[in-house]
Amino acid sequence: MTDFSKTRAMFEMPEGMIYLNGNSLGPMPKSAPAKIADFMNNEWATELIRGWNTKGWFMQTNTLGDRIGKLVGAEPDSIVVGDTLSIKVFQAVAACLALRPDRKVILSDNGNFPTDLYMVEGLVKLKDAGYALRTPDPQDVMDQITDEVACVMLTEVDYRTGRKHDMKAIIEKAHAHGALVVWDLAHSAGALPVDLSGDGADFACGCTYKFFNGGPGAPAFIYVAPRLIGDVEPALSGWYGHAAPFAFDVNYRPMPEKIDRMRIGTPSIASFAILEAALDAWEDVDMNDLRAKSIALQELFIKEVEARCPGVTLAGPRDMNARGSHVAFEFENGFPVMQALIDQKVIGDFRAPNIMRFGITPLFIDEDDILRAVDILEGILKNETWKEPRFQVRGAVT
Amino acid sequence: MTDFSKTRAMFEMPEGMIYLNGNSLGPMPKSAPAKIADFMNNEWATELIRGWNTKGWFMQTNTLGDRIGKLVGAEPDSIVVGDTLSIKVFQAVAACLALRPDRKVILSDNGNFPTDLYMVEGLVKLKDAGYALRTPDPQDVMDQITDEVACVMLTEVDYRTGRKHDMKAIIEKAHAHGALVVWDLAHSAGALPVDLSGDGADFACGCTYKFFNGGPGAPAFIYVAPRLIGDVEPALSGWYGHAAPFAFDVNYRPMPEKIDRMRIGTPSIASFAILEAALDAWEDVDMNDLRAKSIALQELFIKEVEARCPGVTLAGPRDMNARGSHVAFEFENGFPVMQALIDQKVIGDFRAPNIMRFGITPLFIDEDDILRAVDILEGILKNETWKEPRFQVRGAVT
Repeated sequence: MTDFSKTRAMFEMPEGMIYLNGNSLGPMPKSAPAKIADFMNNEWATELIRGWNTKGWFMQTNTLGDRIGKLVGAEPDSIVVGDTLSIKVFQAVAACLALRPDRKVILSDNGNFPTDLYMVEGLVKLKDAGYALRTPDPQDVMDQITDEVACVMLTEVDYRTGRKHDMKAIIEKAHAHGALVVWDLAHSAGALPVDLSGDGADFACGCTYKFFNGGPGAPAFIYVAPRLIGDVEPALSGWYGHAAPFAFDVNYRPMPEKIDRMRIGTPSIASFAILEAALDAWEDVDMNDLRAKSIALQELFIKEVEARCPGVTLAGPRDMNARGSHVAFEFENGFPVMQALIDQKVIGDFRAPNIMRFGITPLFIDEDDILRAVDILEGILKNETWKEPRFQVRGAVT
Repeated sequence: MTDFSKTRAMFEMPEGMIYLNGNSLGPMPKSAPAKIADFMNNEWATELIRGWNTKGWFMQTNTLGDRIGKLVGAEPDSIVVGDTLSIKVFQAVAACLALRPDRKVILSDNGNFPTDLYMVEGLVKLKDAGYALRTPDPQDVMDQITDEVACVMLTEVDYRTGRKHDMKAIIEKAHAHGALVVWDLAHSAGALPVDLSGDGADFACGCTYKFFNGGPGAPAFIYVAPRLIGDVEPALSGWYGHAAPFAFDVNYRPMPEKIDRMRIGTPSIASFAILEAALDAWEDVDMNDLRAKSIALQELFIKEVEARCPGVTLAGPRDMNARGSHVAFEFENGFPVMQALIDQKVIGDFRAPNIMRFGITPLFIDEDDILRAVDILEGILKNETWKEPRFQVRGAVT
């Protein structure tokens, strides 16, 4: 049984803050400052260029990838970290198109995270060859999987509503039609059990700054099924994925049969040091325990809000089997209400047009946090403090 | 007059080490550990998600870009940092192809850094439309600039020999033929005066882990001439470059008329904190002073090696006007000799097939270092210590 009081103690949290935004940016692991200081003072400063070998920097793309792999049901040697999620999505979809040269359709949905759609838009323009990106409503994706589709590209858990696709069912149908599937795990990895290998996934990518707590802009990761990697032609073919990266050949040859070929350029080793500390917090976490606690907290939160906060309605499915690990409520004045919550140290976020979003992160959130957050929300609504002019100002919201 | 004893004191250097590899990975600025600790403890830990606004994280792509811009002769608001150099090269060349849709030739040279060529290879394959990458010898590039060429893509200073292209002359000829030029400044930025604006550059990119001392895998940067940016269509079209990044539109619209559109995904803010410390060391450096010292040290090094190390011959041009800021020597047994040098704490590197490469970085290297390095090299050659079996072993060389 996972001891969540132990994981909770591993994170730095400002006094009095109820942080329901770990689905956007996780809090700092207490061990991270020592880890990065060690990297600075005992690796970079002392080893300098030799650190690539003596400190194992060069292969951290893979060693960190394997640690993430254990948390998302991936085979060993099937994940590398680096770059940003946008880049990793581009890589994965480009690889699918090359593997299905006779098909011209990329199927996504209009609830996908915008950058995934943007990156594919860019790819389609680059290809100059009649490719089309289709974005039906999420519930219509299954019906639109046909023999025309080269690639189904979906974010498993909707970044706004928390609605969760059925990964296994979509993969099965896609494969039956000869299509490949790319999963964006931004709101799944570290949020709920993911079984890439068991579900027969082809490609997946994710970020490490949300539920994995790797810090702002922490590196992304990409998964390619071992059965596919040998045939994947990297579209972003950088030296770090070359068969002989230190031979300085003039021509590109991808690292044979290895996930290494999805590496592109020289990754930030400082960001890897921090990510290492962040992954340490997951060592003794059982993903089924995490999911059980997430569901309990979400159900408590929904029940209390519905009982005590009139006008605030649940967005997304009520059925926990169809949800990720954040709760979204619709409220006409969601923006100023969220500003008023933040003012009282309840940190969630707002997503246009009217969604108040709260991340449920069992590693450091418990029942007391949920109950206190609802107390504060109830007070804001009762006293209409959200009508204060200072809460109406729109700044950049992340 | 730049005080180089002051800059020298700003860097951590292991006792007794003569570090002639700052062109590969710069040493750690002494102020960097405090800077990253401050980011960890007083930004991420305390501000969490709010740090994107309250600590200015979101615009550090641009504020750091402007600081680099001053060191490479760029206009304000013409550089953003982020991603890797490989990705930035891809972005720049893809932009050129979109700006010159009727032309199919990318002209580079066979001395370009391999990853630049690899990324263009990948781009050409993606485009599926008859594009060709030409890689003549460096000295033949000028002759091959014709009306067929969409994009000339060159690394200004050859990573092996130090040979330097004439940026201004190449840009002039390219423009006369209607071609655009992409400069890779990996071995120029922080190494010698660069005048992007004055030379009429179109695109440029570079990294910050070499002469800028930003740490292993520190972020890259990209420059786009202000006169072009409004017409650039980002091929890697991520949310961070969107006109309204927080509106979560389903369709991509690039940030109007701004370099921001070259941003892609969420960048590592930890790596920015370190880069900030690294750029502080450049505040009082005059690039002409830097160049003068670089030339003096290189000439001293070459003169001493030629006088005292028989069989070791200069690679690349002798004329300092045609050289960057590293010295390369050819020697048949360059590999074991470099291993023997490293063993005696003289850190240079080896580039196949037979090049010993030494970075000349005036910020922290002086005459005494050069003279001691030559003493040690002379001793290794005289005593044939390089013949010891332990120096023959080939590991990963970075």
